[in-house]
Order: sequence, then C-alpha cells, then structure tokens
Amino acid sequence: MDINQHNRFKNATQKDKAKYMRLALKEAQKAALINEVPVGAVIVKDGKVIARGHNIKEQKKNSMYHAEIVALQKACKKIGDWRLNDCDIFVTLEPCPMCAGALINARIGNIFFGAYDDRAGCCGTLYDLPGDTRFNHRPNVEGGILQDKCGEILVEYFKQKRREIKEQKQKNKED
Amino acid sequence: MDINQHNRFKNATQKDKAKYMRLALKEAQKAALINEVPVGAVIVKDGKVIARGHNIKEQKKNSMYHAEIVALQKACKKIGDWRLNDCDIFVTLEPCPMCAGALINARIGNIFFGAYDDRAGCCGTLYDLPGDTRFNHRPNVEGGILQDKCGEILVEYFKQKRREIKEQKQKNKED
Repeated sequence: MDINQHNRFKNATQKDKAKYMRLALKEAQKAALINEVPVGAVIVKDGKVIARGHNIKEQKKNSMYHAEIVALQKACKKIGDWRLNDCDIFVTLEPCPMCAGALINARIGNIFFGAYDDRAGCCGTLYDLPGDTRFNHRPNVEGGILQDKCGEILVEYFKQKRREIKEQKQKNKED
Repeated sequence: MDINQHNRFKNATQKDKAKYMRLALKEAQKAALINEVPVGAVIVKDGKVIARGHNIKEQKKNSMYHAEIVALQKACKKIGDWRLNDCDIFVTLEPCPMCAGALINARIGNIFFGAYDDRAGCCGTLYDLPGDTRFNHRPNVEGGILQDKCGEILVEYFKQKRREIKEQKQKNKED
C-alpha cells in the first residue's frame, strides 16, 4: 500500500471534501427524479471529477447498478485500467458489501461517504471490509461528510414512497 | 425468505451438482486460454443453464468482470428482472466480497462453489456474508463441489505464470 496515495486528502479541509460530496448529491437527485433510491457518487483524480454515477438499478433491471458501480465502470473506461489507486470516490451513502468489495478490488485510494447505512453498510457499520488487512488492498475510509444532507434525501424519498403506497391503497378501497 | 426456493437442491445428489460445476469449469478453462485467472460460473434456472461467464478482468481492464458478475449480468438481461430468487449459481472459486455482495443483492437462491479461497473468500472462509441475517436476503451456500478440479486449474495457472516470469528474467539476464 502506497501511503502517499492514500494521503491525498490528509491536509484537505472538510470544505474541500464537501465540494465533491455536493457533486455526488447532485447525482443522487438525478436518481430521485427517475424514481430510484437516491444515491450518487463521483470519482476524483488529480482534483478532477473523472466519473459520475447514480443508482439506476430499477431502470437497468439489474441490482448491480448502484451509484458506485456505475461510476467505477466509467472511471475504468476513462483511465483504461482496472487499477484506480490514484482515484478517490465520494458517495452519498455508505457502500454495501458489493460496492465495498468492488472498491477494494479496483484498488481505489480513498472512500468518502455521506450517510451511514445501518442495513448494509460495510465501511464501518456492519463490517469494515476496506480496513481488513487480509485483502490485497486497503482503501482509506471517511464517513459522515455532509451526512445530514445525504441522509435527508433518502428519508424524503422513502417518505414519499410510503405516501404513494398509502394513497394507492386508499384509491383501491374507493374503486 | 422462501424456504422452498432455497431447497431446490435439497434432494440433489453430489452428481447433480457436479454436472453444473463441470460446466462452470469449462468456463474457467476459457479464461485460462485468454490468460485470465481461471474462474468460471454458470447460473441455473429450472434445471437449465441461463447464463455463463468467466473472468475477463484483464481483457475488459475492469476489476468488476469476475466470472460471477459476468454471469449475473447475462442472467438479469435474460430474465428482465434484477431479482434472481429462482436461480442458483455454480462458481469454481469461493466468491470475493464484491461477488458475494452482488449475489445477495440479486437475491440468488443457492451459491454452490468449488475451491475455497483463503485470500478473499466471503462465503465462509474470511466472512460468511450470505449467512448474515442483517442483510435483506440470505442465499444458501455449499462449498467444495469438485473442489480438487476447481483448485487444480488455478494452481496450474499460477505455476505457469511463475514459470513465465522466471524465464523472462533469465532471458533479460542473457540479453
């Protein structure tokens, strides 16, 4: 593990990190607009956003299309390599086992996430997969960046979903 | 969790399971032929193979293209749904965190694997992710099917790789 790679953000302020997380949030909003669970991600290399992605699982009818995976696919294409050591990801929700594993396999440098995920989070909550020294690669992890904003968009989405289901049930009763 | 779905193979003999694992091994051989780590997978629904895949990570320059992921992508396309409850996977090597996570997310019924993986196996060796009751879905797992054959092809591949590296070093010395 090259320590320097992972320390790209060592001296970065929360303001620097928030800048990229806001772009990930923009991606999450795109997901909400198409009725997908609003999670967004951007991948950054040398201070530039090289890939963006949002959850498109329902649209693609494929549970692999989480925001992180969509962004990873684009980043690999852009760089022309599966090794993303020089890249960092900003994602609005703590990665699940699939995404945490994909980020380890891709040898990403840093994982910055927003909201913690009690149900499937594998970057500290249920497991700390990126911190496991038995794997080939150990990305750094920092959670809680713009945590409230990243969480709110999810809470609002599920609230709206429940409202729609309730209205539909009411309508079915009336018909 | 629908118990019946997971019990599709309850009364199956090792011979039945070996039949599908041999098809996964054929996929692994295809990977070896193109100089990829030889891992193969097939996805089975109603007794029929609906998707096949082998590791094409180097070819695709993308670390996501493990055998399981390639097969999952094809299965989702074929079925037109991200839910694969009625499907089972046969894969020659124990799934890594990414693949185990992807199989949980896809709600696959049974995971049958061949060789155990001390370095990254997450279906019993390093972790038992599919057995974790905190996730939304719990696939059944059975490892060790045609274990020797599934392991041998990997051992042979890495032996050959080391031989090539040694020969190259020798050649560089002579030049």
